[in-house]
Amino acid sequence: KAVKLNCDMGESFGSWQMGNDEVVMPWIDMANIACGFHASDPDIMSDTVKHAVGCGVTVGAHPGYNDKMGFGRRPIPHSSDNIKHLVAYQVGALDAICQQHGTRVKYIKPHGALYHEMMNNPDVFEAIVIAAANMDIKPALMIQAMGNNEQHQKTADRYLVPLIYEAYADRAYDDSGLLVSRSEPGAVHQDSAMILQQVEDLLSGEIKTAQGNRLKLKADTLCVHGDNPESIALIKKVHQLLRSIDSSS
Amino acid sequence: KAVKLNCDMGESFGSWQMGNDEVVMPWIDMANIACGFHASDPDIMSDTVKHAVGCGVTVGAHPGYNDKMGFGRRPIPHSSDNIKHLVAYQVGALDAICQQHGTRVKYIKPHGALYHEMMNNPDVFEAIVIAAANMDIKPALMIQAMGNNEQHQKTADRYLVPLIYEAYADRAYDDSGLLVSRSEPGAVHQDSAMILQQVEDLLSGEIKTAQGNRLKLKADTLCVHGDNPESIALIKKVHQLLRSIDSSS
Amino acid sequence: KAVKLNCDMGESFGSWQMGNDEVVMPWIDMANIACGFHASDPDIMSDTVKHAVGCGVTVGAHPGYNDKMGFGRRPIPHSSDNIKHLVAYQVGALDAICQQHGTRVKYIKPHGALYHEMMNNPDVFEAIVIAAANMDIKPALMIQAMGNNEQHQKTADRYLVPLIYEAYADRAYDDSGLLVSRSEPGAVHQDSAMILQQVEDLLSGEIKTAQGNRLKLKADTLCVHGDNPESIALIKKVHQLLRSIDSSS
Amino acid sequence: KAVKLNCDMGESFGSWQMGNDEVVMPWIDMANIACGFHASDPDIMSDTVKHAVGCGVTVGAHPGYNDKMGFGRRPIPHSSDNIKHLVAYQVGALDAICQQHGTRVKYIKPHGALYHEMMNNPDVFEAIVIAAANMDIKPALMIQAMGNNEQHQKTADRYLVPLIYEAYADRAYDDSGLLVSRSEPGAVHQDSAMILQQVEDLLSGEIKTAQGNRLKLKADTLCVHGDNPESIALIKKVHQLLRSIDSSS
Repeated sequence: KAVKLNCDMGESFGSWQMGNDEVVMPWIDMANIACGFHASDPDIMSDTVKHAVGCGVTVGAHPGYNDKMGFGRRPIPHSSDNIKHLVAYQVGALDAICQQHGTRVKYIKPHGALYHEMMNNPDVFEAIVIAAANMDIKPALMIQAMGNNEQHQKTADRYLVPLIYEAYADRAYDDSGLLVSRSEPGAVHQDSAMILQQVEDLLSGEIKTAQGNRLKLKADTLCVHGDNPESIALIKKVHQLLRSIDSSS
Repeated sequence: KAVKLNCDMGESFGSWQMGNDEVVMPWIDMANIACGFHASDPDIMSDTVKHAVGCGVTVGAHPGYNDKMGFGRRPIPHSSDNIKHLVAYQVGALDAICQQHGTRVKYIKPHGALYHEMMNNPDVFEAIVIAAANMDIKPALMIQAMGNNEQHQKTADRYLVPLIYEAYADRAYDDSGLLVSRSEPGAVHQDSAMILQQVEDLLSGEIKTAQGNRLKLKADTLCVHGDNPESIALIKKVHQLLRSIDSSS
Repeated sequence: KAVKLNCDMGESFGSWQMGNDEVVMPWIDMANIACGFHASDPDIMSDTVKHAVGCGVTVGAHPGYNDKMGFGRRPIPHSSDNIKHLVAYQVGALDAICQQHGTRVKYIKPHGALYHEMMNNPDVFEAIVIAAANMDIKPALMIQAMGNNEQHQKTADRYLVPLIYEAYADRAYDDSGLLVSRSEPGAVHQDSAMILQQVEDLLSGEIKTAQGNRLKLKADTLCVHGDNPESIALIKKVHQLLRSIDSSS
Repeated sequence: KAVKLNCDMGESFGSWQMGNDEVVMPWIDMANIACGFHASDPDIMSDTVKHAVGCGVTVGAHPGYNDKMGFGRRPIPHSSDNIKHLVAYQVGALDAICQQHGTRVKYIKPHGALYHEMMNNPDVFEAIVIAAANMDIKPALMIQAMGNNEQHQKTADRYLVPLIYEAYADRAYDDSGLLVSRSEPGAVHQDSAMILQQVEDLLSGEIKTAQGNRLKLKADTLCVHGDNPESIALIKKVHQLLRSIDSSS
């Protein structure tokens, strides 16, 4: 089964540019498109969707807290109902714009602090699952692959929402299946050979942890970033590696 | 054919209350629900949709310019593309929230300065028609009944978007089918007998103008407001008049 | 020494009305005026300052987190530097508008979650004190009178910022000098005789706690609210009680 | 008398970067600093003021309409009172932040659509002059040098507000003293020799118009932009030209 590359896209706002969507879009499979709350606006959403469609890239909604100043990275208290409405609003908005370009939202990947809350708070997770389940477009939900996603899977199954598991090629995992904190040495792989090795490991379903042990990790997609020339060069390398594996299998 | 009552609803925002939705909702047929740009937020939209569904009221989207400070009443320059994205964004957002309450957006009625632009600028009108046409929910578009809506109807027909014509029971019309400006005497009927007479005239398809002549006016729905006790009392009277006519026909 | 009444004022926004400023202003001594982040806008700030000046009421700045949707009541992470800039921005904005009406900002009282953070986090408290100290208008800082404000006073003294202590006439205090939580019975005095008794106690410098013991509490001002007819009636009663005591002393 | 270089600065917002303040600041004399309405936020304002102070650059306030989405470039209807409050709010906010860095706002230069309105609408001009006049810091007001600024000067004199006239080294002027519209050929000088010639002409008080005639133009300062490498290179050249003239006189 093919592993896809997903990347956050469309995070400009008004006159402010962010990211390198033009050069990144051709190399990815799934675009997590900002929905106007932590970044973007209706015009940029339209441009980004059009670009994704032109590149044959699947559109996902990337909803966040309503906090442009903090770019959706600050935790802001929300009840489960708040979350349900917040997510539905943004996904519906993007989906309406998708229809102007002949596509639909296929999945939801929450952004920043909302993503973090989703992974750590079962109530927030369930609220987002319900938001997905209530939409006639039946979007999947993208979450972080961890050592153990059993509770996530159970909740999603109850509402018939498909999950997409994402992993990181450039982050170290600990034995429990969590990411090693960025504050610790070795948390982020800098060496591209090491990163490409982790891609191959992820394809095999089992990676090496920071402690040197083996960890089973289900990864439907790899999260990549296109912030700078190095990361963009890496996206291309990973893309080529995945393609060579696909064609040889 | 029955004439419906439509009213702007859900125009609170965060901790700020506006309007008297609780007492008005039971008496109307169509709720024009604010979509978070000129007023409202995802939570209030959900409350308002739920309330509408509970009262058997049809849900319409009431999109406006992104200008809470000016309540969407200030004209802000937008290109046709800007309008297409602005409207789709808001209608899609409301429709996603509607699905959490088992309903869908049935029509679009633009708000304030956007409504005004739509009626006066054929490009803006066409952009909104296209936004409606591109949505799979196929919403109708509510516009102002004037002496001559031929161009509006032609454009809407080209994109297969149904139009809903609204008229005012409490506003004087001039011979050309436009509303008499509020700055002129007699522009707004204060006397409830006079208003109820205009309702009956509208049902017959022909009203008396400010100049005393007859004017044909197609009205699928009457626009009412619930701002104060007098206007709410009037809504009830018009509601009862319409019902008595319906049941006698 | 006279005890003043302070009240949050000017919390409308755009077309949204909040509070009863018209009826409350004549009865208070100090107006905590919202500065456009959690509520208000430049026009409402001007109207409110003008009204305060007309009633001989002292103007204080009431800065909050930049969160109209949450009315400044949601905790949002801020560094000390963020706080310094956030507070200076809002106080400076209000002070410029004050100068259009011949007055200046005399004190700062943070709003909602920012107030709460200030009372509970010494770094936030110091950041706000520094923001005050850096302004040429040398505003005082209003904080909650507790059983022990020694650390607050020390920090404020270091930066030469005068503190104004506020107490509540309608809230029960525990033996440690903290407010009894609203979730507990008896937290809010409903009986106006009881409230007026606590006003008299506060004037004497010693109140009775929920546990029935005595607590010394320094109160330069009492915080009142004008949300509803009952609270407005109470403001008038407290106002008259304070005046009768002033004139008899 | 020395002619100064002024440049718009501090137009980033939250996580979004704009401009090249780091490389531009050392070469200019006056920084027009955005105040959080069309761009910027309290933290970026603080960083920008600190940077200006470090480079010995005079701080001016650059207030705009409250429209980040449109970057303050869209005309939005405002009454004279709205303008007075809008400008005071932003200038006061920036001035409070200036005090944290040991400086004050020395002048006001409105941004974008507000600047355009100021130059074209005498009521808007007067409202901004009044806003300046009411502030104890007595800021000057920067406006566009035209063939005839007599009315502007009269109004400013009435309120004792000093005017700073700015001209463009890279824009063609017509005989009436207005800028040639960007839609016309030759509106913007591309050739740096031509631009440096216009700088010398401006210093002499008389430039050559697009029609080939002479036009007297009073210029206290030249407006420069640091958007791209070419414009930054030009700033340095103009800076050096001005310095060589200063030192030779």
